[in-house]
Amino acid sequence: MTKIILDLDMGIDDALALAYALGSPELELIGITATYGNVLVQDGVRNDLALLELFGRPDIPVFVGESHALAKDGFEVLPISEFIHGSNGIGDVTVPDAAACCQKQSAVDFLIDSVAKYGDDLVIVPTGAMTNIATAMRRSPEFAERAHIVFMGGALAVPGNVNACVEANISQDPEAADIMVRHGKDVTMIGLDVTLQTLLTYEETRKWREYGTPAGQLLADATDYYIKAYETTAPELGGCGLHDPLAVGVAIDPTLVTLLPINLKVDLEGPTRGRTIGDENRMGESATTRVAVAVDAPRFLTEFMARVGKVAAGL
Amino acid sequence: MTKIILDLDMGIDDALALAYALGSPELELIGITATYGNVLVQDGVRNDLALLELFGRPDIPVFVGESHALAKDGFEVLPISEFIHGSNGIGDVTVPDAAACCQKQSAVDFLIDSVAKYGDDLVIVPTGAMTNIATAMRRSPEFAERAHIVFMGGALAVPGNVNACVEANISQDPEAADIMVRHGKDVTMIGLDVTLQTLLTYEETRKWREYGTPAGQLLADATDYYIKAYETTAPELGGCGLHDPLAVGVAIDPTLVTLLPINLKVDLEGPTRGRTIGDENRMGESATTRVAVAVDAPRFLTEFMARVGKVAAGL
Repeated sequence: MTKIILDLDMGIDDALALAYALGSPELELIGITATYGNVLVQDGVRNDLALLELFGRPDIPVFVGESHALAKDGFEVLPISEFIHGSNGIGDVTVPDAAACCQKQSAVDFLIDSVAKYGDDLVIVPTGAMTNIATAMRRSPEFAERAHIVFMGGALAVPGNVNACVEANISQDPEAADIMVRHGKDVTMIGLDVTLQTLLTYEETRKWREYGTPAGQLLADATDYYIKAYETTAPELGGCGLHDPLAVGVAIDPTLVTLLPINLKVDLEGPTRGRTIGDENRMGESATTRVAVAVDAPRFLTEFMARVGKVAAGL
Repeated sequence: MTKIILDLDMGIDDALALAYALGSPELELIGITATYGNVLVQDGVRNDLALLELFGRPDIPVFVGESHALAKDGFEVLPISEFIHGSNGIGDVTVPDAAACCQKQSAVDFLIDSVAKYGDDLVIVPTGAMTNIATAMRRSPEFAERAHIVFMGGALAVPGNVNACVEANISQDPEAADIMVRHGKDVTMIGLDVTLQTLLTYEETRKWREYGTPAGQLLADATDYYIKAYETTAPELGGCGLHDPLAVGVAIDPTLVTLLPINLKVDLEGPTRGRTIGDENRMGESATTRVAVAVDAPRFLTEFMARVGKVAAGL
């Protein structure tokens, strides 16, 4: 069984990624590290704890991460993030606070310690700003060397969703993302190239609601909010993209996607700041990053519904 | 044997592409259509005829193409093109005018007629501005439907060479390139993703010079000019990119590269104008374009030296 840490900015599709991980028998979720992006880090922590309790796994520890980008001294949630995820991050659906509290250890220390302890048995899945990961890499060369990372973010061969070049997670902290793709030794990018091909509709969320459980109700209501936002931001899609869950899916089964080995960089200057792109100065070198460029969307959706369905039904 | 039309803006690497085609027993070069880019179209015609004579194939017809971009009413060679290819397009090396003249039929009509006549037995390799190809597609739906095209141009997963997003051939006529990738039914892109991995150095050109032939001398001298320009524009490479010849190589043997099926578009507005990128609105559809994302550079260089070497030795 593979150990996994989710680095979430919870976030509606983060909630789906969490459910996907909890519903996967191949995975042991050893902790959630909270980051910012869709929400402030403290709201992410609250949501992580609340959903773990709702999903029947209050035993899983939650760690507080960095609160803002490396090159900034603060963070505010963008209006577009609030529009897509609601002001509370989970589609303005009410979920009670959990009884459990967050851990005293920092997210960064937990990430470093876990890689030291579990090595190749652990995969880390970041789905928000990459600041926790970059900070861990800066502090610990061993972490950079040994961590296996499958992140949601970036756009390589398709346009971005912030502007023509830039995807939202990378835009939160381009410097952190650049550190991650340059210093990591095993980094897989699950970006818009593939996540916009994995669509969920009201037809699927209705099934979760029909279980009649609090978990099913939350997953259905929050995801419906998300699908409704997509009707405004990307009406041509006809559903919502399953961004974060696909990263968890690939962490379990890389054959869900086609991976292109290519050394990446993140543009830090000029009009393309925040773009993920092949590094023209490391083209001949052995690739430490791989980018998903195609996805078996029907197979992924089947896996997704089976796994999230288990959580929706009440584990 | 595959029939081939080269659509050249001759150009030093165009000369290498021509030599590659002439030295390939798998190919029958049925004509050159001249385009603009590295040179004015009339200078391209002159170079095409002169090099065909020098290479011992004055029988191959040359057709005059469009002289400027679809959205413009004229064309001037950019200073950077002149710097890289010399003011005469072939590294300021002197080659006498040919005895033969160009054909009366236009390049566009020759392209349309040839596809009608040869269908699947013909491949077209454009290596300059795509205006001839787009004009043929606009005039003839049958051409768009049936033409097999392997073009040099674009940059998908790496930065451009005109700016961070844009490659030179596409930048000459973005509208034409967009028509080509949207309306063509079998279009293969050989862009900077792979051509910057195919390097030639003085060591190789020396071999051509040692043949002591006029063809070998021209190929060596012109390519040395090109390598010297690269020492200024891209010193990190340690040689020159074999852009146009790789497109001919792939027209013969697609297994030289790894092809990613993806429906392309060319950005026509805003700061990314001229960028080749996946079309987010046609992601689910069957792909009519394929992009080379990896190349077996050592094998290509071996093929390149064997084929161009034949022409350098005097066919």
